[in-house]
Amino acid sequence: MGYFITFEGIEGCGKTTQIRLLAERLQALGHAVVLTREPGGCPIADKVRAILLDAENSALQPLAELLLYAAARAQHVAEVIQPALNSGSIVLCDRFTDATIAYQSAGRGIERDIIDTLNSLACQSQRPDMTVLIDCDARVGLERARRRIEAASGPREERFELESHAFHQRVRDGYLALAQAEPCRFVTVDGNSSIEFIFDAISEQVLARLAGKHAVR
Amino acid sequence: MGYFITFEGIEGCGKTTQIRLLAERLQALGHAVVLTREPGGCPIADKVRAILLDAENSALQPLAELLLYAAARAQHVAEVIQPALNSGSIVLCDRFTDATIAYQSAGRGIERDIIDTLNSLACQSQRPDMTVLIDCDARVGLERARRRIEAASGPREERFELESHAFHQRVRDGYLALAQAEPCRFVTVDGNSSIEFIFDAISEQVLARLAGKHAVR
Repeated sequence: MGYFITFEGIEGCGKTTQIRLLAERLQALGHAVVLTREPGGCPIADKVRAILLDAENSALQPLAELLLYAAARAQHVAEVIQPALNSGSIVLCDRFTDATIAYQSAGRGIERDIIDTLNSLACQSQRPDMTVLIDCDARVGLERARRRIEAASGPREERFELESHAFHQRVRDGYLALAQAEPCRFVTVDGNSSIEFIFDAISEQVLARLAGKHAVR
Repeated sequence: MGYFITFEGIEGCGKTTQIRLLAERLQALGHAVVLTREPGGCPIADKVRAILLDAENSALQPLAELLLYAAARAQHVAEVIQPALNSGSIVLCDRFTDATIAYQSAGRGIERDIIDTLNSLACQSQRPDMTVLIDCDARVGLERARRRIEAASGPREERFELESHAFHQRVRDGYLALAQAEPCRFVTVDGNSSIEFIFDAISEQVLARLAGKHAVR
C-alpha cells in the first residue's frame, strides 16, 4: 500500500537534514508522510534507544547491543511502520536494518548470519522499498558529528561517536558493500556535496521511483 | 569450575525468599556465592528490566519483549555469570532461560523454536547445572504477589502481575512440563508448604548435588 524509504550512512553524513527536507517536499506534493527513526520511533523503543546511545553504557556487550536493536526494531515495526504503510503513507526512516549490518557486522565483527536472523525476526518480512545511502568520508562525518554533539544541550547520545576512525571506516565500507549488492534498492549519493545538491539528487530519485510505482499500478 | 543453580516459578511462589536463605546457608558453609537475578543482575540489564516490568509499557509487543529478555540475558551472562563461574563461585540466579520458555512460549504463545534460538544466542552455551522449581497454585501465588506490590514503596514492577489467572496457569503448566522433560536438572518442590519445609527440601537437594559434584572430581 504505502512506500517505505530508509536513509543510511555513517555519523555526520547529513541523513537527518536530508530526510527532513524530503519529508517537507513530499508533504508539499500532497503525500501522507510518516517521518521516523531507529533506534526509537515510539515510546518503548525510545527507552531502548536511551540505553543504546548513552556513552555511560560502555560495558554493553556486542551481542546484547545487537539484541537491543532487534527489540527496538520489533516494537517500532509493529507499532509504527506497518500500520503507517497499511494506511498508504510514505514512511521515511532514519536508519533501519542496513545500519545493523554495517555497524554490528562490518563494524563490530558479529557473524552476518546472526544479524540476518535477528533482522528478519524483528521486521516480520517488512523490507524497505528504497534505501538512500549518503556516502561520506569517515573523518569528515565524524568531525561533523562531534561538532553537533558539542553544540547540543540535550541528552548526550555519543556512544558511537566515541568509536575509532577505523571503526567508522569499516562501517562506511560495509554500507558501500550493501549498496553494491542491491543496486535496485539502493540509491547512493555523495555526502561531501552541498546540502542543496544532495537534496536535488535524492528528491529526483525518490520522485522517479514513486512515479514508477504508480505507473506500474 | 563453579556451580550454576537457577530458581524458577510463577509470581509469588516464594523464590526470592528461598534463594536468599540458600545463599546464607552456602556462605555459612564456606562457599563463595554470587546471588543474582533476571531480568537484570548488572547495571545495563537492570535498565532493560525497568522497561520490561514497568506496567506503563503495556504496548510492549511479545516479540520485542522476548528480544529485550535476550538482550538483558546476554549482558548478564557475559558480565556476571560466566566470570563468577570461572572463578569457582556457586551462582544462584532468580529466574533464567526456563522463565522465558514458560512465560513467552507457554504464556504468550511465541514459537518455541524462536525462544530456543534466542536463549542459546544469549547464553553462549552456559546452561544451569541445577534448577529449583517452586511449584505453587497460580491463584495463591498471584494473591501473594499482589499483596507484596501493595506493600512495596519502590518502583512498581507489576506488568506480569496484571496478567490474567489463565496466563499464570499456562506459565505454571509450562514450568511443570519443563521439569518433567529434564528430571536430572530440575528439582521441583511444593511451594504451598511452609518456608522452613521448602527450605529444608531445597537445601538437602542442593547439598547432595554439590557433594556429588565434588565426589565425581
